[in-house]
Amino acid sequence: MSSLSLSSFSFEDIPTAEVDAAEELYGGLADDLRDLLDVTIRTRVDESQVARARELVRQAADLLAADAPPEPAGIHFNADGRSWNWGNAVVGVRNAVAPPVRLEWQEDGSVRAALTLGAAYEGPPGSVHGGVSAMILDHLMGETASAAHTRVTVTGTLTLRYVQPLPLGPVRMEARIAREDARKVMVTGWIAADGPDSSPAVEASGLFIIPRWAAEPDAPSGVGSLD
Amino acid sequence: MSSLSLSSFSFEDIPTAEVDAAEELYGGLADDLRDLLDVTIRTRVDESQVARARELVRQAADLLAADAPPEPAGIHFNADGRSWNWGNAVVGVRNAVAPPVRLEWQEDGSVRAALTLGAAYEGPPGSVHGGVSAMILDHLMGETASAAHTRVTVTGTLTLRYVQPLPLGPVRMEARIAREDARKVMVTGWIAADGPDSSPAVEASGLFIIPRWAAEPDAPSGVGSLD
Repeated sequence: MSSLSLSSFSFEDIPTAEVDAAEELYGGLADDLRDLLDVTIRTRVDESQVARARELVRQAADLLAADAPPEPAGIHFNADGRSWNWGNAVVGVRNAVAPPVRLEWQEDGSVRAALTLGAAYEGPPGSVHGGVSAMILDHLMGETASAAHTRVTVTGTLTLRYVQPLPLGPVRMEARIAREDARKVMVTGWIAADGPDSSPAVEASGLFIIPRWAAEPDAPSGVGSLD
Repeated sequence: MSSLSLSSFSFEDIPTAEVDAAEELYGGLADDLRDLLDVTIRTRVDESQVARARELVRQAADLLAADAPPEPAGIHFNADGRSWNWGNAVVGVRNAVAPPVRLEWQEDGSVRAALTLGAAYEGPPGSVHGGVSAMILDHLMGETASAAHTRVTVTGTLTLRYVQPLPLGPVRMEARIAREDARKVMVTGWIAADGPDSSPAVEASGLFIIPRWAAEPDAPSGVGSLD
């Protein structure tokens, strides 16, 4: 089995301005890919057009593969406490699988997000896949447990209650710490359609754990939830 | 709120051979996109190369957008009972967000899948995102509840227990019906690294419900779980 430890995080001696520039450069490419991915689901162009599109996609992949280490993106941090996990399946800005979710930290410790889930997140016809709601709630709740990245947490258990279908389109979500007991943090969360009258489509509660190794005095700051 | 009903499914008067051909055509494009998506996370080519790649990606998107209705993919079925949900976030072969998971129906009613989760499914460094495990388990368990697509089910509740990290790479998963009571189906499932000594990384149990409307006599066959 694999295991996680403080060495799972990579310290990088890179100024924050350089990190921000790289994020914008490669993030822009991933944004274009999200558009391509969406239209790939919906298109009905003919075989010859699909063949041309495949040729363009393969050319792009060859260009990018000319210098691409095989490792996944990982989690990195610099001396300023800036951290980046660009490959993350939920928040990774270089990962077109991720919507990506952008976290809004509130002063009371709760965390919100507002995002649009399009055709690529479908489950029931016209609705968000129940597993997608589970995935992004797990992440938002883990980040909430990390108390604004002041500690590292991992998911222990997660329970989801599906109340009603969630239409594809704009959604909002929120999570907050319900209670804490030593290394155990209980978090609740929900996701709903974004609208004045909408009520939660999925409600969740989870137990998040601060691993023993994360309590070591040289634990990196700015890393947050290990989702 | 949106709601689901039998009209959520579209009957299409298309021969199965044509459905299969379309699946292969557009599925091939999505496979190429999965490769592009993966290398987009890992690449470190310079700004000019990224600009060239973006140009190619946008050209491909423009080609495909020339004839693309705005609706998500939905769930369709034909007179043979062949069904297709190509945009599904877990199993959709035209959706590059989906790995996609391919279901292996067992004679005893359990359902298995084996797949490789690469850089696009990362959470903790080198590990599968806990939310990704939740997402694909939800789907596999819902399909299991549908008893080989002989009935429609929706997720009621889902509980996940995270036992150990799941390394990126080949994984296997399995789900089975634990018990049934009228319209309630209890399903258990797990996901593990694919290897001789591996034990589950995430264990799940879920309550799946057969909606009242799905018990109508004209319910379409071959549609299965509404995940």
